[in-house]
Amino acid sequence: MIVQRTREPGPKFKPFSLGLGLTAPWLQKPPTPDLRRSHFNAREQAIVERIKQLKREAGSHSPSAWTLAKQVPELRLKVDACFLSNPYATNLFLGHLHREVIRPKRLRALLELYPSQNRVIANKLAPVLGLDPDSLFIGNGAIEIIQAILHRLTDRKILVNLPTFSAYYEFARPETQVVFNVLRKEEDFRFDPVRYLEIVRRERPDTVVLINPNNPDGGYIAHATMLWLLEELRDVPNVIVDESFIHFATEGIGYTYRSVADEVRRHPNLIVVKSMSKDFGVAGIRAGYAVMDPDRVRALLDNGFLWNSSGLAEYFFDLYSRPDFQERYERERVRFIRNSRRFFAALRRTEGLRVYPTQANFALVELQNGLSAEDLVWRMLVRRGIYTRTCDDKRGLEPGRFLRIAARNRPENRYIIRSLRRMMV
Amino acid sequence: MIVQRTREPGPKFKPFSLGLGLTAPWLQKPPTPDLRRSHFNAREQAIVERIKQLKREAGSHSPSAWTLAKQVPELRLKVDACFLSNPYATNLFLGHLHREVIRPKRLRALLELYPSQNRVIANKLAPVLGLDPDSLFIGNGAIEIIQAILHRLTDRKILVNLPTFSAYYEFARPETQVVFNVLRKEEDFRFDPVRYLEIVRRERPDTVVLINPNNPDGGYIAHATMLWLLEELRDVPNVIVDESFIHFATEGIGYTYRSVADEVRRHPNLIVVKSMSKDFGVAGIRAGYAVMDPDRVRALLDNGFLWNSSGLAEYFFDLYSRPDFQERYERERVRFIRNSRRFFAALRRTEGLRVYPTQANFALVELQNGLSAEDLVWRMLVRRGIYTRTCDDKRGLEPGRFLRIAARNRPENRYIIRSLRRMMV
Repeated sequence: MIVQRTREPGPKFKPFSLGLGLTAPWLQKPPTPDLRRSHFNAREQAIVERIKQLKREAGSHSPSAWTLAKQVPELRLKVDACFLSNPYATNLFLGHLHREVIRPKRLRALLELYPSQNRVIANKLAPVLGLDPDSLFIGNGAIEIIQAILHRLTDRKILVNLPTFSAYYEFARPETQVVFNVLRKEEDFRFDPVRYLEIVRRERPDTVVLINPNNPDGGYIAHATMLWLLEELRDVPNVIVDESFIHFATEGIGYTYRSVADEVRRHPNLIVVKSMSKDFGVAGIRAGYAVMDPDRVRALLDNGFLWNSSGLAEYFFDLYSRPDFQERYERERVRFIRNSRRFFAALRRTEGLRVYPTQANFALVELQNGLSAEDLVWRMLVRRGIYTRTCDDKRGLEPGRFLRIAARNRPENRYIIRSLRRMMV
Repeated sequence: MIVQRTREPGPKFKPFSLGLGLTAPWLQKPPTPDLRRSHFNAREQAIVERIKQLKREAGSHSPSAWTLAKQVPELRLKVDACFLSNPYATNLFLGHLHREVIRPKRLRALLELYPSQNRVIANKLAPVLGLDPDSLFIGNGAIEIIQAILHRLTDRKILVNLPTFSAYYEFARPETQVVFNVLRKEEDFRFDPVRYLEIVRRERPDTVVLINPNNPDGGYIAHATMLWLLEELRDVPNVIVDESFIHFATEGIGYTYRSVADEVRRHPNLIVVKSMSKDFGVAGIRAGYAVMDPDRVRALLDNGFLWNSSGLAEYFFDLYSRPDFQERYERERVRFIRNSRRFFAALRRTEGLRVYPTQANFALVELQNGLSAEDLVWRMLVRRGIYTRTCDDKRGLEPGRFLRIAARNRPENRYIIRSLRRMMV
């Protein structure tokens, strides 16, 4: 466990160079074309330089594919495997938007007028989630909620797993001490609840964060374990459970998933954070919510968040509240999970890759043959138009060895596998 | 000046009743149809009750016309004169959106992918504003920025004019004392800079707020006075100037307007807040910005606001940064100002109304003949489909007498005038 807090360094993008390992003796025959050994030509190198510039500007998060596509038009981006979403759900949403809003010429109202306030949207959303509307807070994406919690509720000390989504420690107030529970590579980054509770007892944090499934490894804590943990964490003032990827985690019969959102009733210290950008693939409209004790929701609303949803986010939540949409979404969710698991299995069968167990829609991949993660990411991007990300900027992971690859639709998944296999030989 | 701070009460909507003044002797002949004396029928009364419910839910801000239209479909809303925007600019924006995004099928990228981060958008916007990009902070609407400033920069005491936009005192932290500079009705709510500076010297606030033009009266502080004030306010740690309506205020030759945004270079205590919802009529996409000292922008970004813009807000800022769009917008701005001033002149010629001087796109209207503002607003809404707002919930204005009416497009303005004249006879 690391107790010292330092700000996560920006992504390190050294000038492109092929590692020495590439000419190692185990490389029996040169693949055709020899993607591994070839250096970038002038055009490719120019693209690389341009993207490096954008990466520097983006801080410790990757620039979006949207930024890349706009600012580096010479890059032919084909697959965004950096973006963690269900593309089938995006299709579903866009279909509804076209039929119900754009074609009947109702877009103007959504863009021109003030959207409804937080409470109004919460009242509509609560029934479909089976929750008390007073315990629902609507956010401009989950990130706004994370920021609000860290600034208003977290006090002296926060306990965060490592590796994790960096916002949970980057946006802590300067006076908050961040302590880490380091998940161990040799244990496949599995979360150990007993060891965790020992750390909690020793460190006495006022806030703990559990992302379930975790980002960037996809590790999952079973529902029964979560319930037990919530009991054991009774005395911790703030227990944040980020379920942004829970729709991809299945447990029990069929493809059902288990949320702890309704445990807020019994555990007033629990805060469940939910991004809609992952399961619905609508990151551009910024929609998320949190479930927490009604007193906490009231305190937030007394301090602002008046019109923090956009007209499109409100339409999304309207749609999400409808049983007919839920039914259609459920089909796309299961279809996507099936495809994703096929994709992860194919990744596991790819030589030179170690794929960690995941219940999310992405996999943490470790390179086994001395190839550098950064080199691979650049070549995948510039030569194959596939956008993935190294985990070189993720604390808790050895730099140079890890990639995070998101599952996309079936043809895209096949293209990723094909491209990886060509580059890994 | 009121020094005590109490939370603004929610809007008071008493059951509908006609005032006694309506049968006063000066009412010479009954108008045909007698809108003033007729009570609501059952259908109308049901609509009124439904909207009252929504108003209670909306707190101290009016529910949007969008909420009304959706939740009270039996109400035939024709003109939203509650909404403060330039409808010609909305048309302009929507035209571009259709041609450049929807028709070429590029909407998906805007909604699916993460938008660019704050700095990327600021870099694009800065040149068109002639400002240092490091001094620009992009907000999810101006309200997010107001909230951030009040929570992070304001300390013990804030000085706010009254009447004003209530967020500036409602969202102050509980430990911040709010003191008011009351603008006087008998002085047409004109801002008196000398009296103001006396209050500043006496009260020693750490934050002062000037909305220019002011909401809800449209009162304007001339540019030269502003520059003088900024000098005099050197020792106040935070000087917030909200210029959300500045595009409607003209000074000097033609229809030019004068912003103090570039004074941030010389006055590091200055924070200029700008909503884009008013001048561009795009409240539903949530776009605003603030200009402030680069150190302050950095401090905000170190604490979050990572993806606080939506894909559509980013497209809007892209468009706003283009000279061809600026040129077209400029024409619509002048056209709108011309129409608005015609509208205010017609309001002034309407018997029974006193219209206060305004340089904004709305007018504060006082009823002179004993009619209650609330009654008039209800009847305008239910009988004529015109949505206006009383100022009964605005501190610093005598309840029951004031309305705020926004200028809309020409046919709408004419319809408002016609309807008002029928009801005022």
